[in-house]
This record gives sequence, structure tokens and C-alpha cells, in this order.
Amino acid sequence: METMQHTHTHVDTCFECAEACERCVTACLEMGDKDGKGHDMTACIKLCRDCADICTLCGRLDARGSDFSRDFMVLCAEVCEACAKECEKHAGHHAHCKACAEACRKCAEECRSMSASA
Amino acid sequence: METMQHTHTHVDTCFECAEACERCVTACLEMGDKDGKGHDMTACIKLCRDCADICTLCGRLDARGSDFSRDFMVLCAEVCEACAKECEKHAGHHAHCKACAEACRKCAEECRSMSASA
Amino acid sequence: METMQHTHTHVDTCFECAEACERCVTACLEMGDKDGKGHDMTACIKLCRDCADICTLCGRLDARGSDFSRDFMVLCAEVCEACAKECEKHAGHHAHCKACAEACRKCAEECRSMSASA
Amino acid sequence: METMQHTHTHVDTCFECAEACERCVTACLEMGDKDGKGHDMTACIKLCRDCADICTLCGRLDARGSDFSRDFMVLCAEVCEACAKECEKHAGHHAHCKACAEACRKCAEECRSMSASA
Repeated sequence: METMQHTHTHVDTCFECAEACERCVTACLEMGDKDGKGHDMTACIKLCRDCADICTLCGRLDARGSDFSRDFMVLCAEVCEACAKECEKHAGHHAHCKACAEACRKCAEECRSMSASA
Repeated sequence: METMQHTHTHVDTCFECAEACERCVTACLEMGDKDGKGHDMTACIKLCRDCADICTLCGRLDARGSDFSRDFMVLCAEVCEACAKECEKHAGHHAHCKACAEACRKCAEECRSMSASA
Repeated sequence: METMQHTHTHVDTCFECAEACERCVTACLEMGDKDGKGHDMTACIKLCRDCADICTLCGRLDARGSDFSRDFMVLCAEVCEACAKECEKHAGHHAHCKACAEACRKCAEECRSMSASA
Repeated sequence: METMQHTHTHVDTCFECAEACERCVTACLEMGDKDGKGHDMTACIKLCRDCADICTLCGRLDARGSDFSRDFMVLCAEVCEACAKECEKHAGHHAHCKACAEACRKCAEECRSMSASA
């Protein structure tokens, strides 16, 4: 474990959300479509798949100072919110969904906040 | 050369635009910042870099039938239009900018058209 | 339908494989983990997910003339072969797996051939 | 600034390297092809462009537990080493090249180490 030398940024938040989504897809796939609780994880997998791609690109556009970064954040926030909402349904049963929902909520908030700033 | 077996689709258009943008970035980098005509290619490179990433993901979201595909197309069209506008400035001097501008205009039109359809 | 104006290239092949993989993931997810034939599609989904990402980047590296394009093609061929092998198990039952297996075989062959050329 | 709750991982290292590469591309583009010290930054930009893409996918493959993660790390280490070597040439003059070289060296080491472990 090392001491982090930099302030936690929006770029970090995007990449952490992408990571949580990647982990959630894999965990959902490995437990099968039905999770033994009567839940169908298909919607969760599909949302996490999109969210991983979109958060990754959101982080990269911010890092590079893209002219489209703010517009992309607005879209990213929507995807993160949809993914969080679905993962929250399963958060009581699956740690990977709980972690993913939290990462998505955080990313949605930071994207909204940054895209709204002057 | 082979006979294409499939109808040309929006997914193809997105990937062709991404390819044209990748080629344009490399060609602009290799001729240097100044192109010998007094043009600064920095804006062109930066726009093509963003456009390549966004068109690639637009094509993939369409291919997978994502719920966010239409919203993404709206953003993709904006990026393609901005990239086309910049590349058109150099289209008389550089074949790679001309090819990129055409690919971007086509992609913008298809993204606009598809995102507007019911 | 339009007349294609360019020769079919390795870049096209990579993007077509990525598209087939995206479609296969979605189709497999939508029919559920078990496909009604007693097949578990989890391995297929996981391989297609990796293959879509790797073929996309393979196409982009080739388009941009990257120094790492040949090394990347070697890895891409391995992933395509693994994905083809898995999809071929289901090709008799599912059109999306058949299409994906064919796209993967073609991409593997072109990646092998191009990476071996001087 | 917040307290980090997780151990720093290989996934984090990959994403931090991708971020440093994105920043380095933009900074190099904005100072022009020639940096006022007589250095041509074209090689640096091209390497960082590839390295950003490859590190991003390396981090994602690790996060998802891909079967191809180790093979990908080997390739990623090569790209990171090439990028570090180029950025080190400019590290005395440009803070973004210094930061990028350090991120690339760290990522190369972790990729080598992890790909070699049983």
C-alpha cells in the first residue's frame, strides 16, 4: 500500500466507476443469469457494459482537456444514474452490485457538478 | 478485393469515420505542426483525436443495441460536425483532411438522421 | 445500399469482428445464460467482450500506422481464435454465434498473415 | 481531498499511466511540434497516443479478470517502456513528459511483475 500523492479528481472517479462496472459484469456473468434470489441480472450486465465504456472515455476526455468534455459528462451522468438505479436493486444481495452502485452515484454527481460549473 | 455481402450501415459509417480520423491525426503529426501552407494543424489533430474515440464508441453502442445509442449519436454528430468544419479548412491542401472531412460529414448526417427517427 | 468504393482491408475486418462480437454478447445476454439447448453461454459472452475490445483497438492501431500494430495483431489473432472456437460450439443453434465465429476466423487469419509479412 | 479507501492496484497504475499519456499528448500538441529547445515532439505524441489506449485496455482487462490479461500486460509493458524512453529525453524540459515517463516506468514494472507471477 502506498501513500497517494495526488488529490482525488474527476478523472479518478470516472476510472474507478469503469473498474467497478467491469467487476460487476464479470461477477454477474459468473453467477449466471439468475442469481438464486429470483433476480434477472441481464439489465444489470447491459448497463454496466455501457457504463464502463462511457466512464472510461469520460475520464480520458477530461484528462486531455477535450472541448467536448462537458457535453460528455452530461451523458455520462445519465448512464451512471441508470446503472446505479439498477445495481441498487441488487445491492442488498451482491457486494459487487453495491460497490458498483456507489461508484456510479459518485461519478454521476461529479459529472453533473463539473458539467454545470462555469 | 471482395464483394461486400452486407448493406452499408450506420455502424460501418462510424468505424469508417474513426479510421479516417486516425489516419488524419497521423498524417498531420508527420507533416509537423505547420504544414508549409501556414496552417497550424493542432486544432485538426485535437478534434480528430476526440472524433476517433467518440465515433468508435458510437458504432459499438449501435452494434450492441444500447439504450444510450440515440443520445450518444446526438453527441457524436456534434463532434463530427466540428471535426468536419476544421478539416474542410485544409481539404484543398491535404488529401487526408479531405477524406476525414467527408467521413465526418457523412457520419454526422447518419447520426442526426438515426437519432431523430422514432 | 451503396457501392463500396474502397478495397476491403484489415482495418475493416477488425471492425467487422468487433461488431459481430458486440452483437453476439447482446444476443447471448438476451436469451439468458442457458440457451434452451443446455448450453451455458457465459464463456461465449466473456470471450466476445474481450474480443470486441481487442479487435477495435487492433483496427485503430493499424489505421494510425502504430509501431505496435504487428505485435498487437499477434495477440488479437489469439483472442479471435479462442472466441471463434467457443462460438463454433453454438454455431449450429445460434445465427449470432455462427456470424461471430466466421468474423473471428477471418480476423485471426488476416492478423496472422499481416503480422508475419516483412 | 479524500482519504483513499483502497490499496493501490495494478488497475489504478494502468489508468494513471493512461491519464499521464493523455495529458502529455495535449501539452505536446499545445506547445507545437518544436518545443523551443530544438526537440521534435512527434515521436512523443505518437507513443503517448498508443500508450494511453493500451494502458486503458490493460486496466480494464485486469479489472474484469480476462483470460488474456497476462498476455496483454506483456505487450503493455513494451509500449510503456518505449514511451518512457522517449519521454525521458524531454523530462528535463517538460513537466508533463517527466510525469508521463514516471507513470510509464511504474506501469511497465507492474505489468512485467504481474505477468511473470504464477
